[in-house]
Amino acid sequence: MPEIRKDPISDRWVVISTERGRRPSDFGSTAVTSTKEDTSKCPLCEGNEDKTPPEIVAWRRSDTLPNKPGWQVRVIPNKFPALVIEGDVNRSGIGIFDMMSGIGAHEVIVETPNHNETLADMEESHIEKLLWAYKQRITDLEKDQRFRYILVFKNYGSAAGASLNHPHSQLIATPITPRYIKLELTNSRAYFHEKERCLFCDMIRQELGSGERMVYENEYFVGFAPFGSRFPFETWIFPRRHQAGFQFISDEERMQLARCLKDVLTRLKKTLNDPPYNHVLHTAPNSVPRPGKPDYWGTISYDFHWHFEIIPRLTKQAGFEWGSGLYINPTSPEEAAKYLREIM
Amino acid sequence: MPEIRKDPISDRWVVISTERGRRPSDFGSTAVTSTKEDTSKCPLCEGNEDKTPPEIVAWRRSDTLPNKPGWQVRVIPNKFPALVIEGDVNRSGIGIFDMMSGIGAHEVIVETPNHNETLADMEESHIEKLLWAYKQRITDLEKDQRFRYILVFKNYGSAAGASLNHPHSQLIATPITPRYIKLELTNSRAYFHEKERCLFCDMIRQELGSGERMVYENEYFVGFAPFGSRFPFETWIFPRRHQAGFQFISDEERMQLARCLKDVLTRLKKTLNDPPYNHVLHTAPNSVPRPGKPDYWGTISYDFHWHFEIIPRLTKQAGFEWGSGLYINPTSPEEAAKYLREIM
Repeated sequence: MPEIRKDPISDRWVVISTERGRRPSDFGSTAVTSTKEDTSKCPLCEGNEDKTPPEIVAWRRSDTLPNKPGWQVRVIPNKFPALVIEGDVNRSGIGIFDMMSGIGAHEVIVETPNHNETLADMEESHIEKLLWAYKQRITDLEKDQRFRYILVFKNYGSAAGASLNHPHSQLIATPITPRYIKLELTNSRAYFHEKERCLFCDMIRQELGSGERMVYENEYFVGFAPFGSRFPFETWIFPRRHQAGFQFISDEERMQLARCLKDVLTRLKKTLNDPPYNHVLHTAPNSVPRPGKPDYWGTISYDFHWHFEIIPRLTKQAGFEWGSGLYINPTSPEEAAKYLREIM
Repeated sequence: MPEIRKDPISDRWVVISTERGRRPSDFGSTAVTSTKEDTSKCPLCEGNEDKTPPEIVAWRRSDTLPNKPGWQVRVIPNKFPALVIEGDVNRSGIGIFDMMSGIGAHEVIVETPNHNETLADMEESHIEKLLWAYKQRITDLEKDQRFRYILVFKNYGSAAGASLNHPHSQLIATPITPRYIKLELTNSRAYFHEKERCLFCDMIRQELGSGERMVYENEYFVGFAPFGSRFPFETWIFPRRHQAGFQFISDEERMQLARCLKDVLTRLKKTLNDPPYNHVLHTAPNSVPRPGKPDYWGTISYDFHWHFEIIPRLTKQAGFEWGSGLYINPTSPEEAAKYLREIM
């Protein structure tokens, strides 16, 4: 019998369709790294720094110059940005419609100088530097009063939307708080007001208690398949300690997060034959004071709890999902977690 | 300069990214009908009726028997249903999680006996019969007190999620009202309560007045590219007369809708080289009375207005869209509508 489940954070219903049950081998995805290519022209490779816009920040050897080799993680503006950085956010209405100018930041975080390395295979100490870059960019961009939100994400493999194969993450700062974040905030805020407890903390406690969807656990972090997984092998990573924004992460926590990310990504890579995936960082919105609305979306929320959502891209979204916002997932999170636990 | 726009019906923000502007030829999609295949084994073809579960209803010649040739449109249960039809909807809670048994209907509406016909190429009089089947199934299934909603949709081409090439639509009846429908209802209801006018009717009036996003218009129906289009060449079709549920459509309206659908699909097919697409029917939720909550989602809403959403599948959804619920659309709806108007 299939089940219909609700994820309490997003208020999203999901059909866990056991009748269509699928094991890892049934997805038949092609390993992302199986394609070989000429890397001499890759604009993100070391030595090709002049093929990108000037770098915003980089983790590099102290005896090297910006926009020259010698870096380990490098942040640059996206050459084809979805939003533009220069200008004011002008808001206007046209009859029943609302709009604003498309102001924002769109940056590329080059994860490594090596074209053929994957995040799962990097040293933990290298992943720490990538997380340092995430934190640095959020801390810097949240000072810009035009931006309400900074979304960090990664597209791995062309099926996940990557147009360059060189390992990279991206970041888009927007003058609005995106819908999914608003929905999560609405729910976690209502929960907190009613119970004086964080919804995310309660979920973590329940997952640690039951254990059936757990994938990874260390002193500071947990990774599990969410009860209302939209996608097969969807995995979320949370700090165990309550923390609203990713930018508040300590150095010790960053180290442990690198360990956790590497472990979870390695399990996904081994179980699903190096699948295409997206990961997304959900953190509290920027603390931009807004006139007369101190408690609006702008404020850093005590009731938010940052986390990563990792989504392997194994199934196609069809008319039902696009039309309803309801997902059909052929692999239960309990089964997915079991595979991921047992692979190592 | 890109623009950030809001669709007032779904409350969804969209980035219209003109910097990435794309014309029809830039998408380079392969025509769906370009693949040839052996149709003798297709379970949906005329003569192969014994390869499907027994039919639920069909438009067929009066001298023919069920599950034999002689039909023009045929509705059958999905052989691999996402939800199952037999059983009660048992609801339960597990700690902070909610779930219910996966009860529902999942049907396939075979649009024609001819394997190689596309909806755009069918006679208007044939499309009328398909719309008759949509109406018949909604009218029948809404009597089932277990179901809150009936979603009719179509996946055209494998990139749009179709697993069979034979022309078909699908229908899934669910014991919950899907999220997107709820969001539309919430917004249109609030609008109606404030203004005593239908939000959808206001949008149609504004689009007819400005004309810049109009694609098609007849006495009863309009087709236009929505102001907040998520996808390039997204097109919505509305009845001009206020009508909450699709099942209230008259025979005369059904005829005009067939004409409108054929026209719009033909324009999309010609402009975009027979692209993969989804279409979805958004209609008011079932009128299931619920104890103590006569005005809850269950009731047929005077403030809803049914419509079709047609989504060509030309771009990939990546981490940003999955993580934010915010869309980046490289083709403005004004440009898309202009191409669609001028193609014929």
